[in-house]
Amino acid sequence: MSVSDGLAILGRYRDAIERALREAIGPGASPIEAAARYVMGWEDGEGQPLATGGKRIRPALCLFAAESFGANPADALAGAVAIELVHNFSLVHDEIQDHDLVRHNRPTTFARLGEAQAINVGDFLYTRAIAALTHGAGEVSRRMAALAVLNNAIERMIRGQWEDLAFEARERVEVAEYLTMVAGKTGALLAAPVEIGAILAGAPPASARTAGAWGASVGAAFQAQDDYLGIWGNPDITGKSNTNDISRKKKTLPVVHGLNHPIAGAVLRAAYAKPAVEPADVVQIVAALEAAGSAEYCRERAAAQAAEADRLLQMLPLGEVQRAEFRAIARYLADRDA
Amino acid sequence: MSVSDGLAILGRYRDAIERALREAIGPGASPIEAAARYVMGWEDGEGQPLATGGKRIRPALCLFAAESFGANPADALAGAVAIELVHNFSLVHDEIQDHDLVRHNRPTTFARLGEAQAINVGDFLYTRAIAALTHGAGEVSRRMAALAVLNNAIERMIRGQWEDLAFEARERVEVAEYLTMVAGKTGALLAAPVEIGAILAGAPPASARTAGAWGASVGAAFQAQDDYLGIWGNPDITGKSNTNDISRKKKTLPVVHGLNHPIAGAVLRAAYAKPAVEPADVVQIVAALEAAGSAEYCRERAAAQAAEADRLLQMLPLGEVQRAEFRAIARYLADRDA
Repeated sequence: MSVSDGLAILGRYRDAIERALREAIGPGASPIEAAARYVMGWEDGEGQPLATGGKRIRPALCLFAAESFGANPADALAGAVAIELVHNFSLVHDEIQDHDLVRHNRPTTFARLGEAQAINVGDFLYTRAIAALTHGAGEVSRRMAALAVLNNAIERMIRGQWEDLAFEARERVEVAEYLTMVAGKTGALLAAPVEIGAILAGAPPASARTAGAWGASVGAAFQAQDDYLGIWGNPDITGKSNTNDISRKKKTLPVVHGLNHPIAGAVLRAAYAKPAVEPADVVQIVAALEAAGSAEYCRERAAAQAAEADRLLQMLPLGEVQRAEFRAIARYLADRDA
Repeated sequence: MSVSDGLAILGRYRDAIERALREAIGPGASPIEAAARYVMGWEDGEGQPLATGGKRIRPALCLFAAESFGANPADALAGAVAIELVHNFSLVHDEIQDHDLVRHNRPTTFARLGEAQAINVGDFLYTRAIAALTHGAGEVSRRMAALAVLNNAIERMIRGQWEDLAFEARERVEVAEYLTMVAGKTGALLAAPVEIGAILAGAPPASARTAGAWGASVGAAFQAQDDYLGIWGNPDITGKSNTNDISRKKKTLPVVHGLNHPIAGAVLRAAYAKPAVEPADVVQIVAALEAAGSAEYCRERAAAQAAEADRLLQMLPLGEVQRAEFRAIARYLADRDA
């Protein structure tokens, strides 16, 4: 299978997910519900309908995992909805914390409603996520197990977000600290849907945990690759600048790796201490990171996590068709150029 | 029984609640856990232990309800912990929304850590609340029912908070709108502990709902009385100023009632439109509210809700001793001068 097959597999669940998400938020007239529909990409700022937004990768992973473990994907819809609502709750609170005014070319909730109501919108999406699993159909013990995994993932995500903000104020961050942070901030919500899908399908607990670990490894590979592409990607392919991460002084994986290298670290600290990082600084930093082996480190980390995902996949009680689909999804998420 | 007996009844559960709450947060070394212990009143800003804080009324209501329905209070501890953590989560997010720097003579989390990390601390307390019920001992179907009630109460609380913020920007608010707002903002977390205690004790669903409705009525009586005392209370008894609510332009129940009266409304709007409400304005407003029947309206509302609580109590399958204790608690919460 090609990389695009992974996208096609996840796309199978798209309509069912959109329908279930819309049901979970509902057509209520109150402003907080309208604000939630805006976040989900269904309405513009005046309440007018929009073509649906978002790739919905996390809920698709949940339904895919459930189907792979022999269930009807519909049996895992409550978990899929919960995961996607949590993802959106986290985006809304992140936007306040980072004072982001625009996301995907739309004003953020923070920009539209201000910090106070944006906090409420995020909290509201959190409650609706939990409600999807407290009110869903299906065996109560499976739903409770799914809730425990989801809530634990939320806690890890919040801890990651705390650390990410704390790192901004620190001059030096160890690579291991960075990896722990990012495993929480972005990895937890990629592992949880896979584990929850398996749980709601009735997979044995050990298999569900291994499936979740597969999601965590794929997420870690994705993140390392994403951080690599943020500096060494081809903008014609990624569609994103490859100087922004550095000129915005972001502490991505290659930067954190470089900060712990004597020469690259000195170059980075000197440039990041300036009010603005100039284009000439970016060129110098990229050269220093390359000399420090930071690019190679990211590539190796991505490859090692992809290999770990494949090792975990071998442990799962799946047929060859399912295994091939898991691999295609891993390639789509982690092994991309864009 | 006297009013103070209600306090004594709730006090029976204090030690068990403190122990369980401390276990739910734990002694973890990470800063987010330390921030949570600060919120709970167990540590000062340097991590030094404090004599325990907070009256813990909500979790005590939960254990009291469980015991009244024939259970060992320990069977409802998970619900009690969850409720108190949600209450604290809501305080932390409220403080950001209101830019409050001090609460109970201590710097708020917002003041100590800033808006971004305070959002995380609130979110973290929310996850720990849910975790108390996903990981607690006891029958899974009861815990799931308790989670559904808790999460629904959180949603109502958030909607109430949204409305409260929205009302600040409006010149006129109907009394009915105000009552709906306050039923969510403060009532939901007084109803939920009683219903959850009953659920975890295995009470029939209809009885649990009625018990929750008792809590909602007591909460409504409490709130009406509290708003009354904020203007007509004796500061020597309440320990609180009886001019602050007006000089801070708060829209409490008597003020909302007065705003809908032609004469008092004009007096209030004129004074609230000024940069600062002067002492002479306060005197004039209080007189206008009295003439408009706003004080009487609050007293009647408190009495009507107390009577409704008593009517609901008659419907509950309880013995006379339990019923007397319910009444003592209602009096302690709703029928006070302070």
